[in-house]
Amino acid sequence: MIIAVPDSAAGLSAVDGLTRRVAGLLGAREWLDACLARIDAREPTVQAWVTRDAERARATADKVDITSSAAPLAGLPIGVKDVIDVAGWPTGCNSPLESGCVASATAKAVRRLEAAGAIVVGKTVTTEYAFVEPGRTRNPHDPARTPGGSSSGSAAAVADFHIPVALSTQTGGSIIRPASYCGIVGYKPPYGWVPSDGMHYLAPSLDTIGLHARTVADIARVAAVMEERALPVASAPPCFALLRPAPAETQPAMTQAVVNAVSALRAAGANVRETDLPAFSAELDVPHRVVMSVEVARSFAALTADRRGLLSESLRAFIERGERISGDELAAAQAVVARAKSKLAAYTGEILIGPAAQGEAPVGLTSTGTAIFNRPWSLLHVGVITVPVGLGPNGMPLGIQLIDPSPAGEWLMSAAAFAERAFAQMQSHSSGRAA
Amino acid sequence: MIIAVPDSAAGLSAVDGLTRRVAGLLGAREWLDACLARIDAREPTVQAWVTRDAERARATADKVDITSSAAPLAGLPIGVKDVIDVAGWPTGCNSPLESGCVASATAKAVRRLEAAGAIVVGKTVTTEYAFVEPGRTRNPHDPARTPGGSSSGSAAAVADFHIPVALSTQTGGSIIRPASYCGIVGYKPPYGWVPSDGMHYLAPSLDTIGLHARTVADIARVAAVMEERALPVASAPPCFALLRPAPAETQPAMTQAVVNAVSALRAAGANVRETDLPAFSAELDVPHRVVMSVEVARSFAALTADRRGLLSESLRAFIERGERISGDELAAAQAVVARAKSKLAAYTGEILIGPAAQGEAPVGLTSTGTAIFNRPWSLLHVGVITVPVGLGPNGMPLGIQLIDPSPAGEWLMSAAAFAERAFAQMQSHSSGRAA
Repeated sequence: MIIAVPDSAAGLSAVDGLTRRVAGLLGAREWLDACLARIDAREPTVQAWVTRDAERARATADKVDITSSAAPLAGLPIGVKDVIDVAGWPTGCNSPLESGCVASATAKAVRRLEAAGAIVVGKTVTTEYAFVEPGRTRNPHDPARTPGGSSSGSAAAVADFHIPVALSTQTGGSIIRPASYCGIVGYKPPYGWVPSDGMHYLAPSLDTIGLHARTVADIARVAAVMEERALPVASAPPCFALLRPAPAETQPAMTQAVVNAVSALRAAGANVRETDLPAFSAELDVPHRVVMSVEVARSFAALTADRRGLLSESLRAFIERGERISGDELAAAQAVVARAKSKLAAYTGEILIGPAAQGEAPVGLTSTGTAIFNRPWSLLHVGVITVPVGLGPNGMPLGIQLIDPSPAGEWLMSAAAFAERAFAQMQSHSSGRAA
Repeated sequence: MIIAVPDSAAGLSAVDGLTRRVAGLLGAREWLDACLARIDAREPTVQAWVTRDAERARATADKVDITSSAAPLAGLPIGVKDVIDVAGWPTGCNSPLESGCVASATAKAVRRLEAAGAIVVGKTVTTEYAFVEPGRTRNPHDPARTPGGSSSGSAAAVADFHIPVALSTQTGGSIIRPASYCGIVGYKPPYGWVPSDGMHYLAPSLDTIGLHARTVADIARVAAVMEERALPVASAPPCFALLRPAPAETQPAMTQAVVNAVSALRAAGANVRETDLPAFSAELDVPHRVVMSVEVARSFAALTADRRGLLSESLRAFIERGERISGDELAAAQAVVARAKSKLAAYTGEILIGPAAQGEAPVGLTSTGTAIFNRPWSLLHVGVITVPVGLGPNGMPLGIQLIDPSPAGEWLMSAAAFAERAFAQMQSHSSGRAA
């Protein structure tokens, strides 16, 4: 169920659109209007948006066109997950508790993109406070399935060509997993490189603002602005290290997708070795829940009992779990983190790969799927990126996650670009064979 | 003001005492009694102990002698900081809030040492809950001066030959700084290697159980049991990297001690290069306060207002600071940590060195000195060790801290042994010259 690329400018990648704009072949207003038209046509089905302000966006686009801005992202339409502040709009967090609160300032990450010329089209649907209670967004590849979460709207809107790039956040697996389910690229930066102030925190020591886009090049272009850094470009193929499979936790199609990915990377000239680091282990999953629940409890500590009653059952239970965590439990969890980081240090210079999700997006909208393959890397603060690798038996996308074990994650982007090319070559070969 | 080594077995290092016991030249009971006699003689001046139980310790020592135990630490007398549980004794934390509470179980770190034959002589004085409010302990080199804190009693007792080894804890600089003030070796393990359950937590993600002893070899012997790991032995001199001096924060005698230390390391054949990592920076100090205060607030959250009134003003103020920290502040602090870790990764394979404290132990008992040179490393979870390097203008000890930037800290112990030898050679040369 591949989504047909729109004929309009809405079908352009960020890099292509920006290139055409600079060349005078595309106006910012034209690009924006194509995106707005696409949203109008598709939103009833996909339901990716909370707030949109076409007039505000058009006014900004017109200004870009009049001034012929040469800013690096001038004219790029973007969406912003509705846990991140944009001045003048509510930050709804998909909770009745936030109704009526309008943000007075724009989050720093968004300000950096706006300063570079990006145009915020609107706010995208999140699960309740970026935790697990789903929003109404559907998977554009199959509206009967979840797009994943918590960055549901951002992933779905990008996959469905509403916008080329969206801001998302991840605390467990909220960028990487929806990217896999929606067949797009998702990037969770290494912790600490994108300023997070101006977001509604779930767990401040884990919450990371990142991106959804349809190509690695688009992610790289926007991330460079958001992180204010230029990454090195690799001159040789990356060395990949395969996470130890977790067959009991992985659907056969995803297991096969990982095998295919390894073959494709090797065919493209990369070295791929096996590792002893697990794709899933309870040893790292439990500490994530411990650290996160303690911080979530703190984030919601100021709520009165009355107002706490307006939270979902699942979020309330998680807060209560966090309140009960003992010092011994928290210290034991942090000890596991520290020791896992020392194991990870042995992989510096390599890129870890494994499944980005258990398999295809689950049927139904009552759950956004599980983040068991993602939580360890969020906990370890490393940079992660999803690269789509093919389709499963139901025609739904599958993604591979790439992880840079070094704290700065400098080589992740060039490794992802390599993998994206390798996977595309594999697909063109296999369709060539089928023909 | 060097303390004369006692003629008795109390003057022995852990390694020497253990060696003599195994050779049949020293009974466990004899060793213990020598320590108890030393404590009786010196305690009125030093005031390092809270709880002692000579009968319990003697019964254990007699058992060691009768069974001729071959356990690796059989007969080693140790002290335990009074924030760590020993079954049957109160864990007083130097607070009226804990009076009457007797620990029902022994902390895991202590259990490991007891299982290896170590004999707990008693509990040593801590500052209030291992925060800043001083206990009554005096510096054995000069009773008018602080021994440092929060592990005041452990450092003073070891320096004064009450016991060869004591368990201590560090959240900011509570092991490394008192070791410098008392002229002994202090070891803060890399976070996560010593189990901390059974301690009274201040900030669980920072609190680390470590050791005070008079030699690096003693620390290595006991740490191997406490961490349950064997460290590699270096075959070549370590590469040292000197932290950028902080002249405004450092007393001239300490600045000179660092210069002397570098000369001694070079004379002993080591390479020492200068670095751009600062010995002190507000950039890392503030995040330590933020992360720590948030966790301290949580540790004391269950106290009723009445009972909170029994805390010191300084601890109450710190708790209130923690309660006020916003998500933005906490995330910004954690971002600094993450980025500092990525800078630190560039020094893997080297050992960082710098001052362990600002200078000699301050006069007076109203403050235990400041931890500004220690907090960054506690925050970054790396292993640190103090090695004494000489005396200041008032005859008080000065220590150098060595830091292993890698998360497992495997090379710290052999580097410290190298530095200890190098500093000893320097001192014998200079006294040779003076003679």
